[in-house]
Amino acid sequence: MLCDVVAAAREAGCEPLILSTEPFTFGDARVTLDEHGLNDALNDLLSRTPGHLLILMADLPLTTPDAVRRLTSSTADVAIVPGRGGGTNAIYLHRADRFRVSYYGGSFCKHREIAREAGLTCEIIDSFRIHTDIDEKEDLVELLIHGEGLSRIYLEELGFSVTIERGRTGVERKGAGEDSVLVL
Amino acid sequence: MLCDVVAAAREAGCEPLILSTEPFTFGDARVTLDEHGLNDALNDLLSRTPGHLLILMADLPLTTPDAVRRLTSSTADVAIVPGRGGGTNAIYLHRADRFRVSYYGGSFCKHREIAREAGLTCEIIDSFRIHTDIDEKEDLVELLIHGEGLSRIYLEELGFSVTIERGRTGVERKGAGEDSVLVL
Repeated sequence: MLCDVVAAAREAGCEPLILSTEPFTFGDARVTLDEHGLNDALNDLLSRTPGHLLILMADLPLTTPDAVRRLTSSTADVAIVPGRGGGTNAIYLHRADRFRVSYYGGSFCKHREIAREAGLTCEIIDSFRIHTDIDEKEDLVELLIHGEGLSRIYLEELGFSVTIERGRTGVERKGAGEDSVLVL
Repeated sequence: MLCDVVAAAREAGCEPLILSTEPFTFGDARVTLDEHGLNDALNDLLSRTPGHLLILMADLPLTTPDAVRRLTSSTADVAIVPGRGGGTNAIYLHRADRFRVSYYGGSFCKHREIAREAGLTCEIIDSFRIHTDIDEKEDLVELLIHGEGLSRIYLEELGFSVTIERGRTGVERKGAGEDSVLVL
């Protein structure tokens, strides 16, 4: 999934910096190791970044270059793509050091409020591709149907496919029991 | 929800025609009564429509005029906004009589295939607002957070609000038991 996100961001003109909590290499992409929690690690980075910054989660494999371009072409100070269930999947900041993040527990509303309190304009970007994070087994349906990158191919190579039973869509894995678990 | 969908479509320059299976009036909007199933009723309408047609489901209360405009400004013969789980939430057709619909059971892939077989170009429109249909109780979170129309106000007046417990977002109704059911 990270491959797909990085590829989409690169094709949209971004230069990826991967924030990881564990030692990690990823091709020629820059990797910053930070063992603090997500908020502390990001807020430290934001405070040192006077220019543009796009924060994109790694579990968004439907992201396309077009979706990233729509986000980064926003003229608002802060542009957000919400995630399902009140989360925040992407934030584009024109002046990163004027913002701080607060992920977890309804972060979308918190981020909108943080922008308001800081006197920053905020735009909601309407993208289901960036809105769709892959957390649960059911989410794999979205990846199998709409994925355009490596994650979908990987899933298919593992034998996963979309099923339709009594009009409802699901995912099955060839030769695997119902309780088979996929770590993507 | 229908009010919000009709208002968004109107503001985007569309002239609503409501397809209903039961006798029904809705302000000054035209209503067509058709007791056949969704596919038969729509395909009959399509075959009699040589011009543009936008098919928009009624359970999409996050739809905004901007989202509709992005859909209707597509230059492809067929523009689709998929729903979650392989469904089809909106279809915009430049020549409606050249297309036929096939809803239920993974309709998004079927519609893409129908377009291909008919030699029609097809574009997927990237909108979480039209992608989000309100089917399950959990979906009400999306409406409470992102709704900009009457449905959200209606929900709030009924006492519904977003809850956050242990970092997870949900919906509760003031004074109601856990099993309270809302028919929206």
